Amino acid sequence: MDHRTREHASVLVDWSARIEPGDDVVVSVAEGAHDLAVAVAERLGERGANVVTTYASDEVSRAYLRAHDGDFDADPAHELALYENADSVLFLGGGRNTAATADVPGETRQARARATEGVREARMATDWVSTVHPTRSLAQQAGMAYEEYRDFVYGAILRDWEALAEEMALMKDLLDAGSEVRLVKEAPGGDGSGPSRRTDLAMSIEGRTAVNSAASVAYDSHNLPSGEVFTAPFDAEGTAFFDVPMTIDGKRLRDVRLVFEGGEVVDFGADRNESVLADLLDTDEGARRLGELGIGMNRGIDRFTDNVLFDEKMGDTIHLAVGRAYDACLPEGETGNRSAVHVDVSADVSADSRLEIDGEVVQRNGRFRWEEGFE
Amino acid sequence: MDHRTREHASVLVDWSARIEPGDDVVVSVAEGAHDLAVAVAERLGERGANVVTTYASDEVSRAYLRAHDGDFDADPAHELALYENADSVLFLGGGRNTAATADVPGETRQARARATEGVREARMATDWVSTVHPTRSLAQQAGMAYEEYRDFVYGAILRDWEALAEEMALMKDLLDAGSEVRLVKEAPGGDGSGPSRRTDLAMSIEGRTAVNSAASVAYDSHNLPSGEVFTAPFDAEGTAFFDVPMTIDGKRLRDVRLVFEGGEVVDFGADRNESVLADLLDTDEGARRLGELGIGMNRGIDRFTDNVLFDEKMGDTIHLAVGRAYDACLPEGETGNRSAVHVDVSADVSADSRLEIDGEVVQRNGRFRWEEGFE
Repeated sequence: MDHRTREHASVLVDWSARIEPGDDVVVSVAEGAHDLAVAVAERLGERGANVVTTYASDEVSRAYLRAHDGDFDADPAHELALYENADSVLFLGGGRNTAATADVPGETRQARARATEGVREARMATDWVSTVHPTRSLAQQAGMAYEEYRDFVYGAILRDWEALAEEMALMKDLLDAGSEVRLVKEAPGGDGSGPSRRTDLAMSIEGRTAVNSAASVAYDSHNLPSGEVFTAPFDAEGTAFFDVPMTIDGKRLRDVRLVFEGGEVVDFGADRNESVLADLLDTDEGARRLGELGIGMNRGIDRFTDNVLFDEKMGDTIHLAVGRAYDACLPEGETGNRSAVHVDVSADVSADSRLEIDGEVVQRNGRFRWEEGFE
Repeated sequence: MDHRTREHASVLVDWSARIEPGDDVVVSVAEGAHDLAVAVAERLGERGANVVTTYASDEVSRAYLRAHDGDFDADPAHELALYENADSVLFLGGGRNTAATADVPGETRQARARATEGVREARMATDWVSTVHPTRSLAQQAGMAYEEYRDFVYGAILRDWEALAEEMALMKDLLDAGSEVRLVKEAPGGDGSGPSRRTDLAMSIEGRTAVNSAASVAYDSHNLPSGEVFTAPFDAEGTAFFDVPMTIDGKRLRDVRLVFEGGEVVDFGADRNESVLADLLDTDEGARRLGELGIGMNRGIDRFTDNVLFDEKMGDTIHLAVGRAYDACLPEGETGNRSAVHVDVSADVSADSRLEIDGEVVQRNGRFRWEEGFE
């Protein structure tokens, strides 16, 4: 076993999930995550936790879902009881084929998700954490060799999380105290390709609370890796250009452009699969408004790998999401932007960029104002 | 996927476990049983059952148990709740290394088993069925090539169970109506090696009820394959010789001899590891008395493979167990032979043998009295 797999398990159990002796833990193991499951079991044994291990096999799910007539029972008693009695759920992702359930009809998935909403809620009510074991399948999706991908994943996960949490707290404090954020990025290359490739977007964050997503349930953060600070902006005005490619419903989009007026998208474009973007924005009223502004601060993540667990935490990137806002960012009793969707779009801000809060530059060309290299 | 894997799944779900729409099923998947899990999920989806899939990995268990200090919590709430709310549990065995937990201290296993007795009872209170997917590891244990072993396993499992259940009912009726059983087998080879290699054993079965173990919960039978009829004899008198090799606590025994007087073993021997047999018989008072007489009737099992799931159901064999008797064989309110152990020893009865009930021969040289070839 790669010694980093054991380190990964320790970060997951100790830093992220904060497992205590006597905790009732469910460990969900994807087809390719066996080695991580062994390492996690070892750490949970040392901790004196109690473990039920489930097999989260995409091929098993596919076979079941395709064979089913689609009339699913609501919240099966045994599954519900398992999660209602669990303190924590650790999701160890990492399959053998990211397209393993490609031929399951969308309506079957949706029918199953609707029928088991109570199970999902019980699971989400635990101290859950989601992580991935590096598999060849994920390496392939990222366009990397297997060894290279393992280095990438452990580079993102085996951080000094305590130090990063402290640094992210500085950004959270700035966002919490601020009223308006402005993101400016000059058009890349300066090739005169027009105003649509330039970003100049202002958003209100008045009264909103930022989340310091430090890869630990102690920070209300449920992904490992994490490393972003996010809040829920509103009343966006201006234009934004997103140079990081992304995948929606299996379709790759590039160079997404959004124009906001009065908080709403009034114009948009993309260099590929623009119709996917159009469908997304037409989902409901909230799909044309912002739900999230996130600042990626995990510099262990240094490239786009077509996996949202990594992409949106990448250092030197900023992402916006259209759609649903997270409750944690909203004042008590306020609903914020509601939508059935929440889709992130990211921009590289390592050059030609600045982020301002109330007119003061807090990040320039990827450097924060508390860092060396910030001018 | 081998088409026989799908047939195996159908026999398991339909004949053995009798799964109905809406049943809450736990499927326990060993490390090497993935393909069978996929086939079983497909069949359960067709049936409209609800499924939780657990990962029964020996390597995960080993890591957890070795790391734990041995002071296990009693019956973890989430694990107990899962099984208390399940209708059926399907155990899909078939690992990658039959010795995968060899270095887990016995006291750790025992401490864990004691602490989770309630979980075990909840599991056994369901309509559970245990089966195995043929793996290379099990082929190795059986001393067979992988393809050869798969043929063997499916030969044992893909039977006409309805027909076999009917045939076994004939044997059950004879045992239920009978008072005394006598098993006689001449010493093999006739080489004058002495009376200890001859079997001539009489046992009382007065008032006892035989179980028709037809690989289905409908017959109170929880193993697939099965195919034996067994009852709980007492007051054994005489000598018995067992020519099928066996493994106790990882030690191989051959040519076990037992001499009974007044229902108790008064002398014994074995050609290898006799001390293991001595320790077994010294476990407690009940360990020197018989707990089971079983007649193997599954002719799809044609050889010893060092796996009790198969060995004791082999056609043309008869086995006896020292130790605990099964409640199902006893009159209401009677306890029968009690012991912490139940260990089977088997004899090939395909030649030089006869089984008598109340003086009437019911099986001779492997043929039953209702069959052609019986003289």
